[in-house]
Amino acid sequence: MHNTTTSKYFLATEEKLKRFVVEALEKSGVARGYAEVVADVLVEADLRGIESHGVARLISYYVGRIRSGHLNPSPNYRIVRETKTSIVYDADNGLGHPVSKMTMEAVIAKAEEYGSAFGAVRNSNHYGIAGYYAMMALPHDMIGMSSTNSVKYAAATFGREVTLGTNPFAFAVPAGNEPAFVLDFATTTVPKGKLEVYKRKHKELEPGWAIDSHGDMTEDPDEALQGALLPLGGFGTEGGGHKGYGLGLLADIFCGVLSGGLFGPTLPFADETKEGAISHWFGAFRIDGFRDVAAFKEDMDVELRYYKESAVTRGAQRIMTAGEPEILKAAYNRQYGVPVHEKVWEGLNILADQLNIPFDLAK
Amino acid sequence: MHNTTTSKYFLATEEKLKRFVVEALEKSGVARGYAEVVADVLVEADLRGIESHGVARLISYYVGRIRSGHLNPSPNYRIVRETKTSIVYDADNGLGHPVSKMTMEAVIAKAEEYGSAFGAVRNSNHYGIAGYYAMMALPHDMIGMSSTNSVKYAAATFGREVTLGTNPFAFAVPAGNEPAFVLDFATTTVPKGKLEVYKRKHKELEPGWAIDSHGDMTEDPDEALQGALLPLGGFGTEGGGHKGYGLGLLADIFCGVLSGGLFGPTLPFADETKEGAISHWFGAFRIDGFRDVAAFKEDMDVELRYYKESAVTRGAQRIMTAGEPEILKAAYNRQYGVPVHEKVWEGLNILADQLNIPFDLAK
Repeated sequence: MHNTTTSKYFLATEEKLKRFVVEALEKSGVARGYAEVVADVLVEADLRGIESHGVARLISYYVGRIRSGHLNPSPNYRIVRETKTSIVYDADNGLGHPVSKMTMEAVIAKAEEYGSAFGAVRNSNHYGIAGYYAMMALPHDMIGMSSTNSVKYAAATFGREVTLGTNPFAFAVPAGNEPAFVLDFATTTVPKGKLEVYKRKHKELEPGWAIDSHGDMTEDPDEALQGALLPLGGFGTEGGGHKGYGLGLLADIFCGVLSGGLFGPTLPFADETKEGAISHWFGAFRIDGFRDVAAFKEDMDVELRYYKESAVTRGAQRIMTAGEPEILKAAYNRQYGVPVHEKVWEGLNILADQLNIPFDLAK
Repeated sequence: MHNTTTSKYFLATEEKLKRFVVEALEKSGVARGYAEVVADVLVEADLRGIESHGVARLISYYVGRIRSGHLNPSPNYRIVRETKTSIVYDADNGLGHPVSKMTMEAVIAKAEEYGSAFGAVRNSNHYGIAGYYAMMALPHDMIGMSSTNSVKYAAATFGREVTLGTNPFAFAVPAGNEPAFVLDFATTTVPKGKLEVYKRKHKELEPGWAIDSHGDMTEDPDEALQGALLPLGGFGTEGGGHKGYGLGLLADIFCGVLSGGLFGPTLPFADETKEGAISHWFGAFRIDGFRDVAAFKEDMDVELRYYKESAVTRGAQRIMTAGEPEILKAAYNRQYGVPVHEKVWEGLNILADQLNIPFDLAK
């Protein structure tokens, strides 16, 4: 058991946690191969310290929806369009992770042959962390990209309605000796979960995070939870909120509109259940289309070190580059155990009973 | 003459302004065909209301540098690598606009054949507005992308040194009856020029725009001009500053590192003159690799209208989508004349005398 100031965490091993996810999904009707992909993506999120996208979602997002008939456990993942350098899947309202991995694998194979390629998936569900798919390009000496839309939580710049998801983008670029550059970010200032954490802690929100239901900026978590998240850059245009709004809408276009899936007006709100509502986007291109890979990687090391070694502001310890905190966290968690919040742990224990599978996660 | 509250503007016609730029560059030793591209990019910026990237830069950035021997007026734009879906140019320290247009044309031709393609340019100079090149994809029913690095003005998250350019990204997506979606944004919260405007007006900066030379956030324009701009999202990580920093560094990687040009540590500061310091990045992919173009464009109209027609916050007039303000401004300026700031107008008048070319811009 690992204690932080506010919550208790149990420590699991990576292998046991993955095995549990696989068994829970198999018992729910998901083919073993697909269940293994979901387990890999979810536990990767927990390893990287992105709790909100890890096993915490196993019950509510995946097993729960299969049980209630809102998610298809045995989908027919079907290619609906394919060219030399593009591929589009219909996910048949199945789990988002296996079809996303298949799509990114196809994108990488096409980029291997032609230099660059893109793909999309429609009629899908939550696919986990966007960075997982972008990072698939790294061992192929390619730059990888991914995006997904999501249920709606956020407002447009100058808007007071909830019209946009948190719509993340991820980009992964290999380096030499330095850890790869992996930028994976929601296009809202903060995720919805952050408002809930602040509510529990009775803390005021930072300006630029959210508006209330009238469209006015608020620092009250309760009012914000009735209102909407703000795009990266905050309220109005003074802090660049129109840039975050533009990126969020771009993600919805790349995912929903381009794939022929749901987008904007038809995307569900957080409290709605709509089947196959989510769409994803993927891309990859070869580094050696630009220059020799070895020289590129050497320069990437020079580039990343330049930022990491430059002088810091008062009170700051050091400068990181995108993806570095997650890599350090994953290395730590592999060594000392994957922290699972006590409430999540308890939920998984109950699930184990219900599905009649062993509950053995502890490190 | 057109008056705003703080500045006077003269009104030019688009044609006369372009002709003037062409003649000034030709007299400076630039081939006519190349000069025409520069004129088109610069005047497009003025038409779209992006004064900072228009003819205001003709003297300082282009003619001035040719005169002082820092920019090559008759470069040998040379392909240094080419594959089915990629192309890299060395700009030979020439003007950035012609080589960027050539590169984006090649990228589009390759994407026409293979579905998607990317390109880069190194050893170049300022290329104007990133959106110009992304928009070149629109008539081909493709999605266009571009980025450039720039001289250094900004700090990394938790950094107090000037280590990053304003490094914009642009994305252009065609629609049907609605104006195309054109997102073109600097990855800093505001451009450097905004600090100078606030200094002249004796106004305080907004929080999240800049730090002083000690790395502390400042609202004093003088201190900020000695310090650094902040990434989109502002100071630290509370407002998502690490996302803007990540995007800015991604742009430097896509442009400088990928092209084999200058990047990070070797990029010049604003007060330094380094030859061929700037690099650019381009990309395009076909919409029909995903779905039929007509259906895509119909859905784009639905998507863009959804945001434009949704309810606004108190005091706001309406919600726009990216690129819309610039399209409206360009339509207005084509009708009523292109505004040229009186100081820029005066400078162009002096330049006309020096180069012995006619000064006839007025509408």
